[in-house]
Amino acid sequence: MADAERTPVFTTQQLRKRRGAKWERYSGDVIPCWVAEMDVPVAPPIQAAMERIVRGQEYGYPLRDGDRAELAVNRAFARRMQNRFAWTVDPNDVFTCTDLVQTSFASVLAFSDPGDKVVLQTPAYPPFRDAIEGTGRVLLADPLRDDGSRYVMDLDRLARTIDARTRMLVFCHPHNPTGRVFSRGELEAVGRLATEHDLIIVSDEIHADLIYPGRTHIPLASVSPEIAARTVTITSATKSFNIPGLRCGALHFGAPSLKQRFEARVPRKLLGQPSIAGIDATVVAWDECQPWLDSMLASLCDMRDRLADRMRLELPDARLYVSEATYMAWIDFAALRLGMPAGQFFLEKAGVAASPGESFDASCADFVRLNFATSPSILDEILTRMVRAVRSNVVAA
Amino acid sequence: MADAERTPVFTTQQLRKRRGAKWERYSGDVIPCWVAEMDVPVAPPIQAAMERIVRGQEYGYPLRDGDRAELAVNRAFARRMQNRFAWTVDPNDVFTCTDLVQTSFASVLAFSDPGDKVVLQTPAYPPFRDAIEGTGRVLLADPLRDDGSRYVMDLDRLARTIDARTRMLVFCHPHNPTGRVFSRGELEAVGRLATEHDLIIVSDEIHADLIYPGRTHIPLASVSPEIAARTVTITSATKSFNIPGLRCGALHFGAPSLKQRFEARVPRKLLGQPSIAGIDATVVAWDECQPWLDSMLASLCDMRDRLADRMRLELPDARLYVSEATYMAWIDFAALRLGMPAGQFFLEKAGVAASPGESFDASCADFVRLNFATSPSILDEILTRMVRAVRSNVVAA
Repeated sequence: MADAERTPVFTTQQLRKRRGAKWERYSGDVIPCWVAEMDVPVAPPIQAAMERIVRGQEYGYPLRDGDRAELAVNRAFARRMQNRFAWTVDPNDVFTCTDLVQTSFASVLAFSDPGDKVVLQTPAYPPFRDAIEGTGRVLLADPLRDDGSRYVMDLDRLARTIDARTRMLVFCHPHNPTGRVFSRGELEAVGRLATEHDLIIVSDEIHADLIYPGRTHIPLASVSPEIAARTVTITSATKSFNIPGLRCGALHFGAPSLKQRFEARVPRKLLGQPSIAGIDATVVAWDECQPWLDSMLASLCDMRDRLADRMRLELPDARLYVSEATYMAWIDFAALRLGMPAGQFFLEKAGVAASPGESFDASCADFVRLNFATSPSILDEILTRMVRAVRSNVVAA
Repeated sequence: MADAERTPVFTTQQLRKRRGAKWERYSGDVIPCWVAEMDVPVAPPIQAAMERIVRGQEYGYPLRDGDRAELAVNRAFARRMQNRFAWTVDPNDVFTCTDLVQTSFASVLAFSDPGDKVVLQTPAYPPFRDAIEGTGRVLLADPLRDDGSRYVMDLDRLARTIDARTRMLVFCHPHNPTGRVFSRGELEAVGRLATEHDLIIVSDEIHADLIYPGRTHIPLASVSPEIAARTVTITSATKSFNIPGLRCGALHFGAPSLKQRFEARVPRKLLGQPSIAGIDATVVAWDECQPWLDSMLASLCDMRDRLADRMRLELPDARLYVSEATYMAWIDFAALRLGMPAGQFFLEKAGVAASPGESFDASCADFVRLNFATSPSILDEILTRMVRAVRSNVVAA
């Protein structure tokens, strides 16, 4: 892709001036590639929406389309599911929220009791573990399995570990951190398993928009009415459209009875309210920013391949799982015998802050999750530093 | 106060252009004085903070002072309580939230069980009733009593109605809608009652900054360690600094054991996250905007008196409780025999949308709550319309 067509990326200098966790958490010279945030300006319609709020000082109780503003998110979610995934959704089955950590806690509290077991496929986004273990539930870890080319589920093994106290499955689709996009067959199998064992599924689909060519996202709840009836889908525009600090998300109940069960334990108003900034940004992102995202995805695909190419040439013993979705790569450095957890190694020896594999699963200390949503020059610098650190390490050993 | 010194107020034309509930909910010509929002621009430091976020597109995961941004709210709350009320607060005893409806639901869920009784002094902010009855608790209404000049509590009567299933008191201080600022003696009496009956108190102090000359706000939890140990204080900068759409508030636990009890039922992460807009606006409001608020309060005091003076002259049979705090007046029109609920009367006959009294208590249909946080000319138009409607009504009858 020609540079002229690329989505613009902030310079390092611009990034270091912002008051953000990604670039400020680590000291001066460290280059971050950890938290799931992109080093790019937002889509122009989002920026225009934010400027309009600030210009008019529209900080009061907001109406949109003559209705409470947060309902606009529900309607935008329904439009987007229809347009992108041909999935028909009733806006009345949607609740807004501020973030998906909140909704994962809420779902676990709503659909299980302390002492109940909740399945989590590992490696996993760390807050899911908190939502299970931090609420007194028992985590039933179901490791994804490397089939030689990618991670797959082993549902037969899972079926054998499920027992009468197992109530829920926290599902992540597309999968973070492995970058898998599950096929219809895999989703049907998950649905059968959940139906047989009467599990409620929380399906985190926040990466559904970040799919690379050759793959298609199928919302789990769209697969069949039976699966929908036991599925809560949680999503947000914050990852794809780079607005996590604005805090806005949605949860969709695949059946009214599911919403009723949820609300009996977690009243809608307990979830609070997203700000008007989060609401307007989300609605504009979902309704108007797909051309921007298409262009962004082309850039991200280039970056994904650039990373994979350099790794293959310069660190051939590292095992990179080529992402089918997400702007994160999941990389196993076990064969390089780094002598310490990979995250720590690259932070200390290379000045590169990736997400440590052990934060996704205790067994994954040889891994890092590397966020490649940045400019070619920053990614090149990250890789150059990593390669140099590995080579120095080999020499030193 | 000379007009030149007044805080600027938006014009009707500007107000009608914004996408807000206050000015858009009712059709064209109706003048709103219902929801608790002021018709004024925000303090310049708040606007500067919003402009900085938008200029830098700081929509990522935010850090402030090298820490998770929401913790800056906790520290700003502690600074403000110290500086304004000489109340020493540990920021670790504070949780952020998005709005106080959320925290009232959360507190009721945390400190009572379905079927338990929760005391609410009436008339009351309507969402408090939802938080009690909507979660399966039993509302024990404790009517405030007109002592001839103002509303007072009748704690002896309340003590007789409390029973073994009574677990909590939802307290509103300063009181909405009556505008009362409770004295130290009254707060001590509330504390004694709560201690004797082992009640947890949720103290809504969102109007604590909107106090008129001659009155002083005393945070309930600051009265004594015994009271603090059973008090959850909920507050927000949104009312005083006119930023309700940005959604940010705080809840303070008067003792660590209270926080632990709360969190065992309502994990911190279940409350979600305020947006960076809400966080920055709140911190700047509390830290930098007191001079603006001092000036605003002088304007509001003028408006309060202007309203009272005209009511006395032109509608002498209406009973206006002069607000000790808040920018709302609580007015009883019973003696005017309007022939329908006062809120409905003024909406239909005067084109004035005040908050209907019956939304605060079923017995208060002859009342309205009138928001006077607007310009003298808009307030004059509201009053002129109301007076005209009452006079036409008398002629017609």
